[in-house]
Amino acid sequence: MTQPSITRSWVASANGHSDFPLQNLPLGVFSINDSAPRAGVAIGEHIFDLQVALEAGLFDGVARSAVEAMRGGQLNAFFELGRAARVALRSRLLELFSEGSTLRGNIEAQGAKLLPLAADCQMHLPARISDYTDFYVGIEHAQNVGKLFRPDNPLLPNYKHVPIGYHGRASTVRASGTAVRRPKGQTLPAGQNEPTFGPCARLDYELELGIWIGPGNEMGEPIAIGDAAEHIAGFCLLNDWSARDIQAWEYQPLGPFLSKSFITSVSPWVVTAEALEPFRTAQPARPEGDPQPLPYLFDKRDQDGGAFDIELEVLLLTEAMREQNLPAHRLTLSNTRYMYWTVAQMVAHHSVNGCQLQAGDLFGSGTLSGPENGQFGSLLEITEGGKKPIELASGEVRKFLEDGDEIILRARCARDGHASIGFGECRGTVIAAR
Amino acid sequence: MTQPSITRSWVASANGHSDFPLQNLPLGVFSINDSAPRAGVAIGEHIFDLQVALEAGLFDGVARSAVEAMRGGQLNAFFELGRAARVALRSRLLELFSEGSTLRGNIEAQGAKLLPLAADCQMHLPARISDYTDFYVGIEHAQNVGKLFRPDNPLLPNYKHVPIGYHGRASTVRASGTAVRRPKGQTLPAGQNEPTFGPCARLDYELELGIWIGPGNEMGEPIAIGDAAEHIAGFCLLNDWSARDIQAWEYQPLGPFLSKSFITSVSPWVVTAEALEPFRTAQPARPEGDPQPLPYLFDKRDQDGGAFDIELEVLLLTEAMREQNLPAHRLTLSNTRYMYWTVAQMVAHHSVNGCQLQAGDLFGSGTLSGPENGQFGSLLEITEGGKKPIELASGEVRKFLEDGDEIILRARCARDGHASIGFGECRGTVIAAR
Repeated sequence: MTQPSITRSWVASANGHSDFPLQNLPLGVFSINDSAPRAGVAIGEHIFDLQVALEAGLFDGVARSAVEAMRGGQLNAFFELGRAARVALRSRLLELFSEGSTLRGNIEAQGAKLLPLAADCQMHLPARISDYTDFYVGIEHAQNVGKLFRPDNPLLPNYKHVPIGYHGRASTVRASGTAVRRPKGQTLPAGQNEPTFGPCARLDYELELGIWIGPGNEMGEPIAIGDAAEHIAGFCLLNDWSARDIQAWEYQPLGPFLSKSFITSVSPWVVTAEALEPFRTAQPARPEGDPQPLPYLFDKRDQDGGAFDIELEVLLLTEAMREQNLPAHRLTLSNTRYMYWTVAQMVAHHSVNGCQLQAGDLFGSGTLSGPENGQFGSLLEITEGGKKPIELASGEVRKFLEDGDEIILRARCARDGHASIGFGECRGTVIAAR
Repeated sequence: MTQPSITRSWVASANGHSDFPLQNLPLGVFSINDSAPRAGVAIGEHIFDLQVALEAGLFDGVARSAVEAMRGGQLNAFFELGRAARVALRSRLLELFSEGSTLRGNIEAQGAKLLPLAADCQMHLPARISDYTDFYVGIEHAQNVGKLFRPDNPLLPNYKHVPIGYHGRASTVRASGTAVRRPKGQTLPAGQNEPTFGPCARLDYELELGIWIGPGNEMGEPIAIGDAAEHIAGFCLLNDWSARDIQAWEYQPLGPFLSKSFITSVSPWVVTAEALEPFRTAQPARPEGDPQPLPYLFDKRDQDGGAFDIELEVLLLTEAMREQNLPAHRLTLSNTRYMYWTVAQMVAHHSVNGCQLQAGDLFGSGTLSGPENGQFGSLLEITEGGKKPIELASGEVRKFLEDGDEIILRARCARDGHASIGFGECRGTVIAAR
């Protein structure tokens, strides 16, 4: 729904139902025809090439420094600059692209470019990821998975005190569109004592919010929760592909390892903290009887506005569905409100022992399931570990993912009086094990 | 014991009992007086500055390319070149530094430098670590720790099938000598249901072998065990500092996180695979009743010579001991022969799901305890979780580490007919929590 009070852009495709209206302006790294990757901003159905715009003299002052920091086709140095650089760049981009901007002519006259997003643009990871941490703050998911193992006592005693997380594999994080090779590994067949080796038979997706870290901290210097927001650059969608059979056999006592490290997919556009500002909301009150967070995890401002209202969606498209021209099957419709801990709490916890965060670090939220059928963020939950297959319009059934299946994550924020923004897609198609 | 058949060096301090005889030639990155970090090789009590030697024209061909790859003060690109580059460089260094070398004059005439190791040289991490993985292949440690929790069944069912490992934190790996700030965190006091927050009270060391990865693999392309040795550049000592009280409360269900990520120390010299060649040994036969490794983890050549005979030592020096001029107290005397899995098995396992390894990745072996008293690689084992404090010559007792305590790791390889080589030290002193 277009609202008259919302500023429109002269880029026609940015108005209406685009993921990338004037109010979003997400940053990413792209290339065309094997050219060197470079930074751009998405607007409507276009990418605005920031390097060309820089050379055309369209940026001054802090905004100019911000774009200069993107040289080399990685946003790490830009993330390191923090909020002031993001705000200055955003402000200049709003000037350039607002409807009626007197600068429209400048852009065109100076040879700056709006490239069509769909056509030849290849999207890359926006940053070099030094460390990737996967949290577990989706309490509905933790309960759903816990129930499969411990029906009477699904959550472990630490869950409501500790924002549980673990180190993930940074080297295999990939941008949306990268094929997902089915992993091989050890699994323990039901009722057996000896493992076998072969392709994963229980391949799953996990719907997560990704968080890009901005300025880091020195080793030994924790980030106070009141300062945590200054260390968050932006957000994406993250699919924590999971091999459930490998996971079940390997994960004791040190946690998931090869069951996750074959690939993690992210949507390539960094939706900035500023673009999400209108969609902040209070952290839901903890249910009666839940403990209060320890002081290092508590900040009044964070409790009042540190959560986000972002609708999350997962779609499945099988090879047969593509052949029959059927629409994708919606597996999940969930929301970031199901996070038991805020992003600021994750940052404060991660660094409280002195652990160093660095610009370009990536966090995953953990799977964000809701409490109801239709809101579950993984097939493990939807099919109850394979016991309740789902039926598709193609006549197929699925317990877990088959070769050729494509998983598509989407996200959308909407609020009265504000332009609705999206995240772009995070897609991945399963290909056969080697 | 100096053996007449072993080639000596004209660098006098390299003969006799040095960690760094002519046969070692470990590589590292150093700086002097805040100059830019650059690559060097240790010989006796000196560092040979490889950048200066390169400019002096002392290297040709493959050896020259090897040293050129070290520009920028990180060994990643050199590691990526693999065995041929290491061998060519080693061969040239042997020529340059052998007793009676006709090139000694060249070195001196061309202004190449031998710098005193002890004085002003500051050692750095040898490479940018993309990912750090900590394994758990010290079976005696796994059994000792398992016994504290499950006296009748210390090893989990997967242990003898899976080279258990987990992702560690790369950003806080530091070179020997970096102070170890005592971390703060959540712990659950005995008999309580609610955690408290404060400085770690059960700070521990873990004695590990570190492994530097050479050429990597593409995502989706496992490294066969027969090829694994080609992907290993060298070795170091690694102290996986551990906060036992934080670990006990946080580690379920996803593994250790803040209990380890505050710092990991490594010895700064990369002892190459070639230098360790004489100290290779057969993997000890598995005890009767143990399962055979699955085929992807089995290679005859690896079983016959893929283990190492390296003596490992841990020393403790408290502030009072330093003041009283007492010698360091030996906590551990162990050996790399207590690894249940070889380094090649770790590489094959890590990549079997398609996980990408990259040059400069770091592996830890896991704590390498032996079966006997005096061989335990952590205080958790030595004091049985704090129940049996150790007594020191200073009159002090220790259950876990106190502020001011320094832990020193050393390693030594010896074999008849070969020069004995060492690893240099991995040191760290505990400082008070902030």
